[in-house]
This record gives sequence, C-alpha cells and structure tokens, in this order.
Amino acid sequence: MISAAIVGGTGYTGIELIRLLSAHPEVSIDLLTSRSEAGTRADEIFPSLRGISDIVFSDLGDNTLGALQKCDVVFFATPHGVAMKQAEALTQAGVKVIDLAADFRLQSLTEFEHWYKQSHACPELLKTAVYGLPEINRDKLASALLVGNPGCYPTTAILGLKPVIEAQNEQAERLVESRIVIDAKSGVSGAGRQASLALNYAETTDNFKAYSVEGHRHLPEIEQGVAQLLDSQFTHRIRFLPHLVPMIRGMLSSIHMELTDAGAAIDWQQVFEDSYASEGFVDVMPKGVYPDTRSVRASNRLRIAVHQDNERAELTVIVVQDNLVKGAAGQAVQNMNVMFGFDESMGLNFAPIVP
Amino acid sequence: MISAAIVGGTGYTGIELIRLLSAHPEVSIDLLTSRSEAGTRADEIFPSLRGISDIVFSDLGDNTLGALQKCDVVFFATPHGVAMKQAEALTQAGVKVIDLAADFRLQSLTEFEHWYKQSHACPELLKTAVYGLPEINRDKLASALLVGNPGCYPTTAILGLKPVIEAQNEQAERLVESRIVIDAKSGVSGAGRQASLALNYAETTDNFKAYSVEGHRHLPEIEQGVAQLLDSQFTHRIRFLPHLVPMIRGMLSSIHMELTDAGAAIDWQQVFEDSYASEGFVDVMPKGVYPDTRSVRASNRLRIAVHQDNERAELTVIVVQDNLVKGAAGQAVQNMNVMFGFDESMGLNFAPIVP
Amino acid sequence: MISAAIVGGTGYTGIELIRLLSAHPEVSIDLLTSRSEAGTRADEIFPSLRGISDIVFSDLGDNTLGALQKCDVVFFATPHGVAMKQAEALTQAGVKVIDLAADFRLQSLTEFEHWYKQSHACPELLKTAVYGLPEINRDKLASALLVGNPGCYPTTAILGLKPVIEAQNEQAERLVESRIVIDAKSGVSGAGRQASLALNYAETTDNFKAYSVEGHRHLPEIEQGVAQLLDSQFTHRIRFLPHLVPMIRGMLSSIHMELTDAGAAIDWQQVFEDSYASEGFVDVMPKGVYPDTRSVRASNRLRIAVHQDNERAELTVIVVQDNLVKGAAGQAVQNMNVMFGFDESMGLNFAPIVP
Amino acid sequence: MISAAIVGGTGYTGIELIRLLSAHPEVSIDLLTSRSEAGTRADEIFPSLRGISDIVFSDLGDNTLGALQKCDVVFFATPHGVAMKQAEALTQAGVKVIDLAADFRLQSLTEFEHWYKQSHACPELLKTAVYGLPEINRDKLASALLVGNPGCYPTTAILGLKPVIEAQNEQAERLVESRIVIDAKSGVSGAGRQASLALNYAETTDNFKAYSVEGHRHLPEIEQGVAQLLDSQFTHRIRFLPHLVPMIRGMLSSIHMELTDAGAAIDWQQVFEDSYASEGFVDVMPKGVYPDTRSVRASNRLRIAVHQDNERAELTVIVVQDNLVKGAAGQAVQNMNVMFGFDESMGLNFAPIVP
Repeated sequence: MISAAIVGGTGYTGIELIRLLSAHPEVSIDLLTSRSEAGTRADEIFPSLRGISDIVFSDLGDNTLGALQKCDVVFFATPHGVAMKQAEALTQAGVKVIDLAADFRLQSLTEFEHWYKQSHACPELLKTAVYGLPEINRDKLASALLVGNPGCYPTTAILGLKPVIEAQNEQAERLVESRIVIDAKSGVSGAGRQASLALNYAETTDNFKAYSVEGHRHLPEIEQGVAQLLDSQFTHRIRFLPHLVPMIRGMLSSIHMELTDAGAAIDWQQVFEDSYASEGFVDVMPKGVYPDTRSVRASNRLRIAVHQDNERAELTVIVVQDNLVKGAAGQAVQNMNVMFGFDESMGLNFAPIVP
Repeated sequence: MISAAIVGGTGYTGIELIRLLSAHPEVSIDLLTSRSEAGTRADEIFPSLRGISDIVFSDLGDNTLGALQKCDVVFFATPHGVAMKQAEALTQAGVKVIDLAADFRLQSLTEFEHWYKQSHACPELLKTAVYGLPEINRDKLASALLVGNPGCYPTTAILGLKPVIEAQNEQAERLVESRIVIDAKSGVSGAGRQASLALNYAETTDNFKAYSVEGHRHLPEIEQGVAQLLDSQFTHRIRFLPHLVPMIRGMLSSIHMELTDAGAAIDWQQVFEDSYASEGFVDVMPKGVYPDTRSVRASNRLRIAVHQDNERAELTVIVVQDNLVKGAAGQAVQNMNVMFGFDESMGLNFAPIVP
Repeated sequence: MISAAIVGGTGYTGIELIRLLSAHPEVSIDLLTSRSEAGTRADEIFPSLRGISDIVFSDLGDNTLGALQKCDVVFFATPHGVAMKQAEALTQAGVKVIDLAADFRLQSLTEFEHWYKQSHACPELLKTAVYGLPEINRDKLASALLVGNPGCYPTTAILGLKPVIEAQNEQAERLVESRIVIDAKSGVSGAGRQASLALNYAETTDNFKAYSVEGHRHLPEIEQGVAQLLDSQFTHRIRFLPHLVPMIRGMLSSIHMELTDAGAAIDWQQVFEDSYASEGFVDVMPKGVYPDTRSVRASNRLRIAVHQDNERAELTVIVVQDNLVKGAAGQAVQNMNVMFGFDESMGLNFAPIVP
Repeated sequence: MISAAIVGGTGYTGIELIRLLSAHPEVSIDLLTSRSEAGTRADEIFPSLRGISDIVFSDLGDNTLGALQKCDVVFFATPHGVAMKQAEALTQAGVKVIDLAADFRLQSLTEFEHWYKQSHACPELLKTAVYGLPEINRDKLASALLVGNPGCYPTTAILGLKPVIEAQNEQAERLVESRIVIDAKSGVSGAGRQASLALNYAETTDNFKAYSVEGHRHLPEIEQGVAQLLDSQFTHRIRFLPHLVPMIRGMLSSIHMELTDAGAAIDWQQVFEDSYASEGFVDVMPKGVYPDTRSVRASNRLRIAVHQDNERAELTVIVVQDNLVKGAAGQAVQNMNVMFGFDESMGLNFAPIVP
C-alpha cells in the first residue's frame, strides 16, 4: 500500500484521479489539497463521491511541502506552472511526482516558454523528467522520479503514428510523405471544470467548431514525440487542427498520411497489430472496423483503426480514447503502476460505459 | 414604421429580440445599448447576425435617457432592477416600455421585495403596469404604456390553467380540488447567457435535476395570475417545482389537478378548444395527442394537451413553448403588436424548426 | 464461483449485465444466448467489451433448457413474456432465476394481463416469485428461487415512498393526504436498444415530452409496492406521469405529497435518514441538497432528497438513480448477491462517472 | 405565384421544404405526395406545422404524373432513384424539376452506377441536368429545366475550394500541392428521418466517429466539382473523410492544403473575400474569426474562414453550413428562385437560430 497525494483535485482530472485511486488496491489517498476548497469534503463538491471517499480538501500552507514529502507519490492535477515549483524538493526527498499539466512534457525550454507564455521554475529538470507514455517509455518510467503525463491529443497522435514511424525507421526509407494532417476532435470536458461563457451548455450544444486554428500547444508535444520519442529518421511536417465536439468525454484523431511507393507495399494492418500485440491498453481494431469514442468511454483503453488505400496512396489512422482517462488520469495511474512495479493494469481494468 | 430600442441586448432574450425585430415589417431597431459592449457590432458577438443586422451596441452615458425617449418603444432585456429606473421618465414622455425582466410583473410590492431581494424604484407603477399576456390582457395592452412581460414558467402555467379557472368561475363551483401541482421543466437557455460552472456543458449534459426546490420566484407570479388575472373565485394551493432539462430551448409544464365530481362531468377537451378557438398562438392539441417541446422550437406558438381520467379523478394539462420566444422575446413582440395596433401575429408567423 | 447465464444479452440491460458480471469476483458468465446473434462474439456487437469479455452468443435450440439448467443462476434480459416460459423448469431444477422483464413483478394476474396485453404462461408462480427490491425484501430474497427484478420507475417510487408509508403505518394515522403525484423523468436508454424513428437522435435531442399520459404499466407496480410491499394501512391514489429526457442514462422522480397536520409534525429529513441508515445503496442527501442524475451515473446508488414545507403543507421527495444499474442490471446483481449469500455490494461498489 | 409539388415530403428535407416554401411569397405548395402517408395531413406527422400548413399527403397512383405536370416546379425529396423515373416526362411537359437526391448530380454514368449501386433510368439527361450550385452555375440555372441539387458535403467542399482553384487557374501555376484533405463533420439529421439502431439517441449521443472511411459517395461529386465545375487546370487528389457529430443540424468541413511557394505569395484572405464579395449566402469571415455551425443554424448561409501559415506552408479553409438548408432544402429554393427569375434570396433571408 502506497501513500498518494493529489494536489489540486477540484478539476475533472482531479475527480477522475480520486475515482480511480479510490478503487486501486495498492493506493491510499492520504492528502488532497486545494486552497479554495480547504476544509470541504470532496463529496460535497462532487456528490458522486458520496459513499466512495470521505477525504477532505486541505490547505496546509507552509506545511504543504512537508506533508507531501511524507507521501510516496504526488499527483499534480493543477494548472500549468504549479508542479514545477515543488518538483525539485519532492523528488530530492525521494517522492515520485506525476504532473498531469504541461510543466514536464516538453524537453525544450524554448518551446515551453513560447507555447505556455511563462518562464520555467526548474528548467534543469526538463531533461530528466520522463514523458509518461508507457507504451513507449516503459523502461524509463520504471525508474523515473519525475513524470510529465502526456497531453490528451499527443497521446492519440503519438500512439497513432508509432507503428508508422518505427516501420519507416526500420526500413530506413520514407514510407509516408513528409506532410501529415492530424485532424482531431475532443469532448468538452477537455476544456476543464470552469465557469466560462464559451463552455455554457447553450453555447456548446448542437454546435461544432474548430479552435486554436492558428496553433495549439499540443503541436510541439506531438512534434517532439515523433522526432525524439519515436526517433524518426525522417522529418515530418505536421498540421494539427483540433475541434470541439458537443459531448462530455471522448477524443478522436483522424491522421491522414500519403503513402510512398515503398509505403504502399507494406501491410499496415499487420504492422499495427504487431506493434501493439502485447499492449493491454492499446487495441488495434480488426480490418474494416472503426471505433467510436464511446467504445472507450470512462475506460483506460485507446483503440486504433488503420485504413490503407494503395490506389489513392492514402493511409488513414483513426485513434479514440477517453480524454480524461487514457488522455489524463488513467494514464497517470498507469504510469504510477509502472513506477512502483505494480501490474500495469492494476486498478484500471474496468469496462467502458455503453450506452 | 416605428422606432425601437433594446436596452441590454447581449443576453439570449436580447439576441432573440434582434432576430425577431429585424424581420418585423413595421419596426426599425434604432438603438441597442450595452455598457460592456459599447462600440461593438452586434454581429461580432453573435456571428449568426452577420448579414442580418449591422447595428452597433452603444453606451450613451448621460444621454441614454434622451436617446431612448426619441424611440416609440423600448424593450428592456436586462437583469431585474434596470427597467424600473427608467420606466417612469420614458412613459411620461409617451414612450412605450416593455420589460422582459421581472420589475413590473408582480403587483404586490411585498412579494416583489421578498422574492427579488431588492427594493423597487417606482412602486407606484406596479399597479398601472399591464401584465403582458395578450391572451388574457389584450384589451388592457391595447392602451398600455408600461408592460411587464411575463416570466416563462408563468406563461405556461397561467395559459394552462385559464380554461379551468374560467370554467370554474362560470359554474361557481369547485371543478378541481384546491391543490394543484405544476411540475415544470426548462431548457438551459432559460438560465441566461452567462459564464457559470453549473451551466458548463460537461456539468449539464446527460444530466437532469430539480432546482429551486425550496421556492422559485415564478410561484408568486403564477399565484397572482390565478387569483387576480383569472380572478379565481376559489383558492388554490399551487406547488410549483422546476427542473433543468439538457436541451437549449423549450419548456414543458405538467399540471396535475384532481377533479371534483362536478369537474368530472365537464368535457375538458371541449372547454380547452373553445377557450382558445380564436387564438393564433395557443394551439390545443387533438384529444390523445401530446406535444413535445420541439414542436414549438424557435416559434411563438404554445401548445396545450388535456387528459381527463374520471375514474381516477385526474385532470392533466401539458403545456409546451419555446422559453425564449413565447416565453420571452416573441411574447414581447406580440405585446408590442397589440400596443401599436399592428396585426398581433405580425413578424411572428414563422414555423418552428424541426428537426 | 457460481455459473451464470444471460438469456438475451443484446439489449442495454444485457450489456450492462455483462459489464457488471465480468467484474464480479464470484461469477463466471458461462452462457449468453441470443437467437439473432448466435455465433457472434459479444464484443463484435459491443466493441466496448473488447478486452473485457470474449464470450460468444449462442443459440442452443432444443438444448437451451438443458444448458441453462447446468447454471447456478439465469438472468433474463429479454422482452416481457420470455422468462415465464422457462422459469418453472429452471426453478424446479434448483436454478435461481432473475427476470429483468415484467413477467414476475405483478402478483395479480389480472393486472399483468391488462397492462402487458398477453396471457401468462405460469400464473401460479406469480405468488411465489419474490419482488427483487433488496431494501424491502432482503429476507425473502435470501431464500428466493425466482425473482422479478423491479421496473426502473417503481424502484424510485417505492424507495422514495417507503419511509413515508412506514411512518404512517407506525403512527396509524394519515401523515400525507391520499393523493400522491409522481412526476417522473427518464433518459432514453430506458426505451431499449432498438431501431425506432421516435428514438432517432434527431427526433429526441433538444426535445422533451411526456409519454404514456393515459397510463403507464409501471403504475400498477407502484400501487402494488405501496399497498402490499409496504403494507400501507391507508389507501393512496397515485398519479404517475413519465417524461422522456434527452440524456442517455438517468432517472429522476419528483414525488409530490400533501402533509396532514399530523404529517407536518414529523421531521421527515430525520425519518428518511433513519429509514436508510444501514443501506449501502440508498443515500439520503443532507438537508437542502438535491441530487442530479449524473451523481449516480453508471453506479448502483440511488439518492433521495426530502423537502418539507409545513406552511404550504408540502412534502416533496426527489429520487435519482441510473435506470440501467439500480433501475435494472445493478439491482439484478444486488439481488443475486443476496440470493447467494455474497456480500450485498460485491461487484457493485464502483463510483459514478462524473463528468 | 407559382405552383409547386413536393414528391416524398416525409423526410427531413421534405419538412424543411414545406417550412421554407410555406413562407415563400411567390410559391403555393399544391401537391405533396407520399405513398405511405396518403390521406394524412402533414401536420399530423410534423405537429410543428400545425397552424403553418394544412396540406395533406396524397397518393395519386397512375394520375401522379398528370398532376405533377400541372405544376410549375416539382421538388423530389425522395431516395436516390425516384426522380430519374419522372424527370423526362416532366421536363418535356415544361415542368421544372429539382432533385434533392443524387440522380442528377454526377455527369458520369459510370461514377453514378459505381457509387449508387443502381442503373440509371435516363442517362441521357445526366449531361443536360444542371448542377444546382448557384454561386457557380447561376447562368445555367436561369434557363435550366432539370437541376441536380448538390450533396451537402460537396456544397461545403466546392465552395470552400472555389477561390483556390480559380486563383490557381488564373495564375496558371500550382498554388496548392496536389494532395487535399477534406476532413468533414456532419450532424445526425444528414442521415435522414429513419428508424435505425445506429441512429438511436442512446447510440449516438456523447459519441463521435468517422464513417465511410473506405469511400463516400460524395467524393466523386467533389472531384467532379473541382475538375469540371471549377475547371481546374491542375489535378488534385482529394481525401474526403466524413464524421458524425452528436448534433441535429450543422456541417463543418476542414480543408487542409499545402501551399507552394507561389501559393504562399498570395493573400488568401483577400482572394476569398473578393471571390464572394457579391454573394448573399456565402459569408467570408474576418481574418482570425472562425465560424461554428450554430452561426448558420436553420439558415441558408454558408460561412468560410481562411487561415494561411506561410512558415508551415499551410492553407486551411473552414466551411460551415446547415446541412438541411444550404446543404439541401434551402439551396433547392435558392435554385428555384434563380430558375424562375425571382430575387435569389426570396423567402430565404431569415436569421439563424442562436442559441
């Protein structure tokens, strides 16, 4: 049994962490901090937790760090810029840290400062932090002290591209042309638990739109994923365009690629199936079957379909996940499992909710 | 062609007024005021108005009253408490005023102060203001200078009860028992255009709840409607309970009554059909057909169904309307038509949007 | 480990049973039958089950009964009229039967035939079947062979009325007047997994309506619950009116009662809290807090709030549940737990999904 | 005043036509045919039409053609394959025909037979039918007898590409690379008014998916639009991938192009604004403003935004429309207006419905 803290548990990733960790057989949530809600039971804010957890939000002020240092693992379910202020002191005390925000996702300080419009409190940790995508970084995670939990979109994009980039590296030949279009769609919970006119029900329902058309901060993370994490030997120019879907949870990324002649000679269905054959949370759909987002609703599974059309030289990859689970809190728990040597699926092996 | 002003057109009743008045053959919107959006074109805030209206929000400061006084009619699409400050000066200048908020709905100052938690700037006008329900107050409206546009729920409740109360008065005998339950349901747009966590899409969708369980400010308005407007000779105890439906527009009130023996002898379908035979905007459904809210979506129609079960002594009345049209802006335009002697349906005779 | 069969698992209660039983530590789903889908893996029809269950639908034809008789428990997730044909042979063989349809809910053959428009294959079993509401019938369920799993609406109605009727019986005095209005609202999944124009997304979304206004088959079940199950010493006339809410899961019943003077003297909040103090799945909300349906989404919890207004002599009870869990499959598993002597919450103690 | 007939008015394009034509000052709907609903008033099937239209569905059997021939214009709101059987007889009698299905959209018989899996009853008319996109084919439409109303997706795609292809033709130089990705998203009403499990509310809500991943029949129509209608001097390889959005109405197409060096030298915002400067129903958004689908809900407007990123050589065009109006019935009425010499916006100049 390990002792866990959640910093900032009043958002959607926070409540999802509470839900998942409350059912985890090896974890005890011993600390839940929030400045604004100190003294309030979590189940007052989230009545769905009544009977599930009786934890109370606390604000320990100056004693916060000391209290966190007594835990085995600290999850930051906070806005960008919070984890970076405590990561050093915690990891030096041997506490494992998983940041669900973006403080430790990008290795490049320049990219971080450009996209997140703030300076970084501990830039020297950027290089040592491990990018928390277990399907790629499992070995590093096993000994990691500090983990940057991936963004939701990058999780779909990097896992959707992994078999392609790896096959291309292996053949040392371009299999898909340089230009890749990732046209992505997310449910509204991805925007967080906040008062916002743009997110008002009457503004969002029966409506669809693109956003961040001029550039989204998940783009550099996807580019880093392809170039460094997947170590692509070839350059790719990625157009990433996100859209807002009137649904609560769920994310679908449509990845459009153009096959080279060499790429058309590949059996991509087979490549994808082989690539993920031993993965518990990545499911390659049978040929001709395409997943919808509800097939993973409230679960940690991510499903991928591949469509190859040699006549038109098209390779289309479709990836779905629940943005709050595999795209956030579930992946954080999966990372924790790897970091502590638990079975990777512990506490995560529940079925999606359908209908 | 009359000259109209809309004070505070940045909410949902505001944009609905702009939509309706822009298409009205006898109205020109000459002034649209907003402190927060002064200088902004309305179609920047509501891109749906691009190509429909090029009006600009203005804030005239000290000159506001003067400018409003040059108009023929002023609509207040403002929060409660705004219209009361200018109603006197405007009506004295001969300008007709229609307040879509609650300043002039209740005749009782005590009730107003109790339910709206504020004092009233011109209590002496409460008695002279006309309650803007044309199906009941048409004659008074024809010469009214100051109109309190009804609340959305009271519109359904009072029109749903009108044939019952009138028949009872006529027979001078109780036809329904004293206790009446109005179980009402509204779409989310009724809560207004605002940044609010409770109205966040992810909080509201796939969810249903009762609210104001301990008392809603539309209750005294309904009680006033029954006792004074319909001049009920019998007292009734009304339980009004509203609920929030995950839909943008639409309102349905289920009115539960218990028939007395005398009441069971009545053919209520006939009574309702007779009562509204000459009304253009109130539609009594054929026996056995029950309306859904989308059957009036975006239109000024209100539909009513009646179910009578003598064996169980039950009388059930179901009323639907679009809360933003017949429940707000459309009714305001209907009132304006009556006040200016236009055909009552002018500019309002468009079809609901289905699907 | 017991061996379970699900007859007819292609509907929403079917997949919910598969989801729940797959995670139950003491149950193995050994048989899943469907005539239309024989030979198909369940996860082909419900891709959400990929990785969760590899069970295959089978149609054993003449051997079905024999195969079912080898199981410890058989769940019927079928239309009304199916379970009645096999219940006798199964229970005689010592197999426990839980019917999620209506074949064994009503003890009165007359009522069954009237409301379900069919004759009954084994009317003699109606009296011996146990009504599967563990919070009331726990003792009988412990030794039951044949269980009629309650309808979704009656579950909310009967549990919402239980503390009231019991208090009234105890005091041997009317605490609420005879007339009770149950104004109920359900999500669309309650209508089942079917091709239907009326349930088409474009017909149902952004829409709200009452249905079965002239009488719903859950009414006699509610009346039976009050009169027999709760053994009410006083008669009550119940008006039950259901509505369709544009949401997938969730049910809310608003129960309107009129307090007698004796009833006004009661502290109903306390009565409700006492009544359910030891129940794991019935949660009485703190005074002044009203539950929304998502607070129980995908969980087996049912939450109740009570509002008492002595001045108006009103008692309002608001009940929420997930219609597919506590209102169907979850309650069936809860019943099974009681029938087999397992911990009543085994396999059911998971958190609701919010957002 | 012209006399119009609608063949097959029981679907969503049918009711939308009734809604639009009922309000058209120069049109009388004199005939509405349906085999299945003969004798039924339209407002029995669509209660939203109560008070709007009292037309009755008729089935004239052998006399149908004769009756249609007495009309000035016949709209076919039927499945594919119906209009082709009557088009010849009607046009020979001088009756103008507008088919909202696909019988006369594709000029190539081979393409029609391949994608629609049926033979064509009058292939010789394919070449003389006019493709009903007024913004491109206005002149031909003015004298057309037979019009193939465009598919919903092609309307967004062709109008979204028009300024690009025309500029490229003008410069006689590639401005965008050959590969174009059209990632499109549609509301559910596009699938028609039908009983379908896949379209059941509980299957569709809170869900998102791609469909027709292996090829959609609107692709050849888009390709024809680019190659022939826009007379592209350069070949383009178009990847068209549609998705289903949980909303009733609305369509958004994201068009991804790669700029050549010559293309990067163009000011695309200006090109788009110039291209549509005189169009009443095509609205180019100001630079940096991106339209959502509700900004055109229930209206005939189509809005376009352009984003150019020279550094990444990206040109992104985003197009929204209401699939039932500009994407179907509204465009049909616009075509009719052109064909009869009415003002092109007659009966179509109403505001979108927001919220």
